[in-house]
Amino acid sequence: MISTINIAESFGRFQQRWTPKIVAELNDSYVKLAKLEGEFVWHKHDDEDELFLVVRGSLLIRLRDGDLHVEEGELVVIPRGVEHLPVADEEVQVLLIEPKTTLNTGNVRSERTIEKLEWI
Amino acid sequence: MISTINIAESFGRFQQRWTPKIVAELNDSYVKLAKLEGEFVWHKHDDEDELFLVVRGSLLIRLRDGDLHVEEGELVVIPRGVEHLPVADEEVQVLLIEPKTTLNTGNVRSERTIEKLEWI
Repeated sequence: MISTINIAESFGRFQQRWTPKIVAELNDSYVKLAKLEGEFVWHKHDDEDELFLVVRGSLLIRLRDGDLHVEEGELVVIPRGVEHLPVADEEVQVLLIEPKTTLNTGNVRSERTIEKLEWI
Repeated sequence: MISTINIAESFGRFQQRWTPKIVAELNDSYVKLAKLEGEFVWHKHDDEDELFLVVRGSLLIRLRDGDLHVEEGELVVIPRGVEHLPVADEEVQVLLIEPKTTLNTGNVRSERTIEKLEWI
């Protein structure tokens, strides 16, 4: 069965920060929703480009050569190999699309690493 | 250079219906924006799943075994091989993600087929 996903309703179903939830899959990728608040860890994904679409709030993505500000209703693709540090002064809701193989902390393992993502 | 894409602003840059515009690429896929109005053509994509995220309006996707209503703020993935017919009574703005190889009319060639997509 093919079902539609209401993005706002899905965000209402979890509270954890930095814990992406899978809502859909297509081809070799997952569509994930995540709530971000505070500072993440510097990391990169060696073989995977990563899409951030800001659904609510204002996301700062620090890069080694400058800052990116991604506002509500904006998207950005962080290409493979580019180190980045997401920072959310207040809660930010993002939709992520990335290959199923992507680890949230990329090349780094830390207490923030989520080994097994949940579907919601 | 990595640049952010403002979805609403990008929709303001074109008026054509049924003519997806590429705004970003990641991995083997494009992120596209399309304005839909009226009825498209029945088609399927044999090897590609297709994501529709409705940014504005209300999209009807007819399937052979029923109808899907995709409202603003909702997304749906049409799996490979599933015949579908998008219908928009009024203008609908959608964000699409699909493999770079995807032809808009899938297995069908018609006057609606766009052979070469433009970036905006």
